[in-house]
Amino acid sequence: MIDDVLAAAQRLVGHAHMTPVMQSSWLNQRLGATVVLKCENLQKIGAFKFRGAYNAISQLEAGDRQKGVITYSSGNHAQAVARVGQELGIKTVIVMPQNAPTIKRQATLGYGAEVVLYDPLTEKREAVTAKRQAQQGYTLIPPFDHHQVIAGQGTAALELLTEHPVDTLLVPCGGGGLLSGCAIAAKHRNPACKVIGIEPELADDATRSFRTGMIQRIDNPPTIADGTRTPALGDIPFSLIMKYVDDMATVSEQAIMDAVAVLFYRLKLVVEPSGALGLAALLSDRVKAVGRVGVILSGGNIDAATMADILAKATQN
Amino acid sequence: MIDDVLAAAQRLVGHAHMTPVMQSSWLNQRLGATVVLKCENLQKIGAFKFRGAYNAISQLEAGDRQKGVITYSSGNHAQAVARVGQELGIKTVIVMPQNAPTIKRQATLGYGAEVVLYDPLTEKREAVTAKRQAQQGYTLIPPFDHHQVIAGQGTAALELLTEHPVDTLLVPCGGGGLLSGCAIAAKHRNPACKVIGIEPELADDATRSFRTGMIQRIDNPPTIADGTRTPALGDIPFSLIMKYVDDMATVSEQAIMDAVAVLFYRLKLVVEPSGALGLAALLSDRVKAVGRVGVILSGGNIDAATMADILAKATQN
Repeated sequence: MIDDVLAAAQRLVGHAHMTPVMQSSWLNQRLGATVVLKCENLQKIGAFKFRGAYNAISQLEAGDRQKGVITYSSGNHAQAVARVGQELGIKTVIVMPQNAPTIKRQATLGYGAEVVLYDPLTEKREAVTAKRQAQQGYTLIPPFDHHQVIAGQGTAALELLTEHPVDTLLVPCGGGGLLSGCAIAAKHRNPACKVIGIEPELADDATRSFRTGMIQRIDNPPTIADGTRTPALGDIPFSLIMKYVDDMATVSEQAIMDAVAVLFYRLKLVVEPSGALGLAALLSDRVKAVGRVGVILSGGNIDAATMADILAKATQN
Repeated sequence: MIDDVLAAAQRLVGHAHMTPVMQSSWLNQRLGATVVLKCENLQKIGAFKFRGAYNAISQLEAGDRQKGVITYSSGNHAQAVARVGQELGIKTVIVMPQNAPTIKRQATLGYGAEVVLYDPLTEKREAVTAKRQAQQGYTLIPPFDHHQVIAGQGTAALELLTEHPVDTLLVPCGGGGLLSGCAIAAKHRNPACKVIGIEPELADDATRSFRTGMIQRIDNPPTIADGTRTPALGDIPFSLIMKYVDDMATVSEQAIMDAVAVLFYRLKLVVEPSGALGLAALLSDRVKAVGRVGVILSGGNIDAATMADILAKATQN
C-alpha cells in the first residue's frame, strides 16, 4: 500500500496544494509540546478529499474517462469529485438526497457536475447510483472504501511527516479513508510514530470497531462534526486501521467546539468541526501531548450560522 | 529609509513569522488576475504590528531597556508592544481608555504588560502617557509616527515582493505606518510597482490628505474597520506617502464585509475588517485587478459577534 501512497504523491504534484503547516506558540505553551497543524482546510475545495478523488480519477483509462464518473455524497467528497472532473475534463455525476443543503448542491453544480436528486424516504442512494452506472457506464468513485482514494488521502500525512518528524499523529476518523491512508504514510516515514484516530463520542463506531475487531455501526449520530456522520468504517479502511493504527480516542461535543474556537481566535483559521477533532483531543486531554505532535486539520467547509453558534458556545481557552 | 527596512528585516529573522502568501484559483478567476495575499493575520499577535514594535524596541540601549517602554493604544499595537516586551524581558506600560473592551485589556495583560486606564472624558491619553514617561523614564513607542516602527512594518511588503514580483500592491491605511513602510519596500524591489493605499469611504482622511497635500482629520469615523479609525495620518507617514505612494482608493462598508466573507468562505482565513480593505477594493472594482496584484491582509483580530454579523450581512460573491 505504501507504494500507492508514494505514487499518489507524485501524481498530485502541481494538482493538489502542498498545504502549509502551522504552529502557535500559545498552543505549544498551553499543551507543553510542539504541535504542528497540517492545514487541509487550505486544500482545494477546502478539504483533504481532493487528494483521494484526484488520485483515483486521474488513473482512469481513456475509455472510462470518456464515459464519466459517479459518486454519492452531499459533503466534501462530492465537491472533490466535481472539481477533479472539471480540471480533467471528465463528466461527473453526484447523487444527493433531495433534502441536501442548497449551499452544498450549489457548490457541486458550480464545479460543473450533474446533480441527481433522490428521495431518501423511498430510494436507496446505492440503488440510484447503480442504475445510472449501468445505464451510462460511469465509474463509481466511492468516498473512502477504495484503495486509490485511500492512497491519495495518505499523502497529507506523507507531506507533514516529510517536513516535520513527529512522535504522534492525530487524524480525524469518519469512514476511515483519511485515517488509514495517513497511518500507512506515517508508519513508512517513522515506524515509531504513534497514529491515533479521533472521533466524536457521539459517533464512536470506529473506536468500537477497533476495540472489538468487528465493524460496528451507528446511524445518524447527532454530532456537530458532520464529516464523521458516516454510519460505519469501510471494509478496506477497517482492515488497514486494524493493521496500522495504534489507538483510537473520542472527544465531547464541547471539546470540538472549543477547538474550532481556538483555531479561529489563535490560529486565524476557519476549520469545520470534523477538522478540529485532533486538536480537540489534545485540548481536552483525551490524548496527552508529549514531544512533537502532528494534527491533521482535515477541512474548513463550515457555514456562517454554524460558526457563529460554535463561537458563542465555546469555552475560553 | 530603505536601509532601515532592510535592517529591520534582518533584525526580525527568528522573531517575527515569515507569514505565508496565499492564492485562490476561485479568486484569480473571479478577478481575471493573479492575486497574492500576504497573511499578516497569521503574524504573531494576529497582526503586522509585531514587526514595527519589535524593530523599534529591540534597538533600545541597555539603560532604556531597563527603564521600560510605554504606548497608548487599545488595539493591535498595544498587544504588539506587550508581546515584544515579554519576549525581550522589557517592562511595558499600555495607556488605554477605561471603556476599552475587556477582551483587548485581557489580551494585553496576558502578555505581562501594565495597563494604565484613563477617563477619556476628562483626560487626554497623551497627557497621561507623558506624565508616566516623565516620572519613570519610559521610552514612548508610538503606533505609527516613528521611523523604526515604519521600517518594521515595511518588511511585510519586502517579504511579499521578494517571493512574488507584483505589478500593483494594495495596502490598508490607518495612521499610515504600514502603507508608508510597504511603499518604500515595494519601490525598492520593483520601482514600477504601483502602490495604492486603501481606506474605508467613512474614514477617508488619508485619501483627502493625499489629494490636497495637507493632513486632513476625521474624528471617530463610524467604520467597521476599527484599525483605520485613527483620526489622521502621522507626520512622518504623511510625507513618505506623498513621496512613495501612487494612489489612494476608498471602499464601502458593504465591500469590506463582502471581502471578510470571501476570505472566510474561500480562503478559510479569519481576517478583521481593516485587514480586508485591499481585497474589498478589488472585489468592488475600486481598483481594477490587472496582471499580478499583491494584497496585504494586515490582521485577523476580530471577535465572534462581529464576524457573525459580517457573515450575515455579506453578499454572496
